Amino acid sequence: MTNQNTSLLAEVAPDVAIVPVSPADLAAAQAHLDNLTKPQGSLGRLEELARRLYAMRGGETPLQVSPALMFTVAGDHGVAAQGVSPFPQIVTRQMVANLLAGGAGVNVLCRAGGMDFYLVDAGCVGGPFPPHEKLLDRRLGDGTADMSQGPAMSRETAAEGLRRGMALVAEQAARGVRCFATGEMGIANTTAATAIYCALLGLDPDAMTGPGAGAGPERVRHKAAVIRRALSVNAAACRKDDPLGVLAAVGGFEIAVMAGIMLGAAAQRLPVLVDGFICSAAYAVAVRLCPALAGYAVLSHASAEPGHVPALETLEEGAPLLHLGMRLGEGTGAAVAYHLLRCAAAVFNEMATFDGAGVTGETCG
Amino acid sequence: MTNQNTSLLAEVAPDVAIVPVSPADLAAAQAHLDNLTKPQGSLGRLEELARRLYAMRGGETPLQVSPALMFTVAGDHGVAAQGVSPFPQIVTRQMVANLLAGGAGVNVLCRAGGMDFYLVDAGCVGGPFPPHEKLLDRRLGDGTADMSQGPAMSRETAAEGLRRGMALVAEQAARGVRCFATGEMGIANTTAATAIYCALLGLDPDAMTGPGAGAGPERVRHKAAVIRRALSVNAAACRKDDPLGVLAAVGGFEIAVMAGIMLGAAAQRLPVLVDGFICSAAYAVAVRLCPALAGYAVLSHASAEPGHVPALETLEEGAPLLHLGMRLGEGTGAAVAYHLLRCAAAVFNEMATFDGAGVTGETCG
Repeated sequence: MTNQNTSLLAEVAPDVAIVPVSPADLAAAQAHLDNLTKPQGSLGRLEELARRLYAMRGGETPLQVSPALMFTVAGDHGVAAQGVSPFPQIVTRQMVANLLAGGAGVNVLCRAGGMDFYLVDAGCVGGPFPPHEKLLDRRLGDGTADMSQGPAMSRETAAEGLRRGMALVAEQAARGVRCFATGEMGIANTTAATAIYCALLGLDPDAMTGPGAGAGPERVRHKAAVIRRALSVNAAACRKDDPLGVLAAVGGFEIAVMAGIMLGAAAQRLPVLVDGFICSAAYAVAVRLCPALAGYAVLSHASAEPGHVPALETLEEGAPLLHLGMRLGEGTGAAVAYHLLRCAAAVFNEMATFDGAGVTGETCG
Repeated sequence: MTNQNTSLLAEVAPDVAIVPVSPADLAAAQAHLDNLTKPQGSLGRLEELARRLYAMRGGETPLQVSPALMFTVAGDHGVAAQGVSPFPQIVTRQMVANLLAGGAGVNVLCRAGGMDFYLVDAGCVGGPFPPHEKLLDRRLGDGTADMSQGPAMSRETAAEGLRRGMALVAEQAARGVRCFATGEMGIANTTAATAIYCALLGLDPDAMTGPGAGAGPERVRHKAAVIRRALSVNAAACRKDDPLGVLAAVGGFEIAVMAGIMLGAAAQRLPVLVDGFICSAAYAVAVRLCPALAGYAVLSHASAEPGHVPALETLEEGAPLLHLGMRLGEGTGAAVAYHLLRCAAAVFNEMATFDGAGVTGETCG
């Protein structure tokens, strides 16, 4: 089988194909799970994850999700000039330093969960950072343009961001990484993510705009107005059937690279954990570019940002795995959810069968 | 401060006191969390767990939840003779062998999560098991009596089960264990758990009875009728204000020992992860014996068993941590949720502060 949506992804990466996961593989995995020493279906979503991991690899066993790697992608947003965030734009750069030093939330949660970590600079304001072993420079510019005044970036830059994300995964998959996760850092990027949802899914800015990193009610109203203006200014480019156009008009450098990472993981037939509100906007772009991505993406958690769950419902995605009221970003929810993939793989690989353990199965219900 | 409910727990263990967690400690923990490099409150329930872990230890830092130990407690139920489960009673014994061999779901998930494991025999049918390094013999009998014909056990046996649970924790805490979890194995024990909820919380058997390990609709109706009969036969002993009486009348050996483990952990000021439907029934008994337990117990997950969430709501507990549609028992949900405690402790202990990382905090919202 081949890529189901060649036409849209082909503009970006004509050589990349994503193989849809096969219903037959999902069924074969469930047959194995049903023979393990437990009531059928009793591990709930862990069984769903195990089925999916099996199907992603086309039936390869044992299931393997380690080593795993978090890409936290940072970028700046011209729209920060509109005062949409209670944090000044310099915080993106300060937080990159914190992420490289290992003191940010996602660093801690990656260590706790057994994930490796890279910080990808997709284009923070202030120029390149000094070299660091955890830093990958994939800068697309010195922050996006202000989307309330015009397009955030050119269509070609958005496509280049996607390609850089795909290339990041290809490099790391070649080094043996078996599971990817995406996270982000970028002051004002809930504004960009909200605009993407509205443009791509036809949702209303007033309903979708939330506090992000901590905006009060007045700032939220202002933020919604800025998003409305951005959608208006970029109306010609924001067509529902053109995810690349939406990404360029109202997206962000880190959002483009994350969408590429997701598509790249799927192209490698590897799972990719999608973090919260902003990562899911990257996912929305990516899955509209290539619907077969859905078989490889794992939605980690329902963000406390109010628009997240409605956006996922509009995308017709199932419920995210975790509901912990998190809204930090950086990949923190994905880092926590990675443990569920490890659990699912371990269940599939290690549990005894009824026959093997000499355990009597269910009689009639 | 001392035990808030001395009168009821005193009948069982006059020397055991549980110190309620202090609101001042919870507030001090939040003050620390608010100074870490993230928007305030943005780690949601991980912050709640971190606050609670801090308060359990009276402010001791760093937070420590390792080594952690799962006690999966097995026991048989006379009421299995009434055909309430689709699995024959011999499966309890077969599954104990599987649990000791390391092939059961909880074994796999403990390994994946970094928990140690013991199987406690609280009274399986068929006599003691051969010695095994992972087996602790705390047998209260050769299975309970059939609660649909009379009390499942005597009041003194129920109290002895609680004491054995508390002693198990005291022994392991002395060896350095810093976090406990409970799970169970026992054919027909959703019947006992359901009866406990109905007797203790005034809930209706028809609304509360569910499929357990996989009963079909007809068997569920039969099971509800058996529970109704058990509540009727034991009506005099099943008083809402007498949790020990309820435990003796319609409980189980493993449920008594688990309730003791929970009380024992709280007495040691250590966290205890409560698994799903059956463990929560043990928790309901234990917290009614001593309400201060609530500060130390962590409800791991919402079971797919339909009565679980209503029971927790009636107990006025907050929502469980995970919602993964699991209903296997054994401690599987607690083993998965343990990772969230590790994450919470790591966040509290390891994240950088705004000052330390040179990151600018929020301006006005």
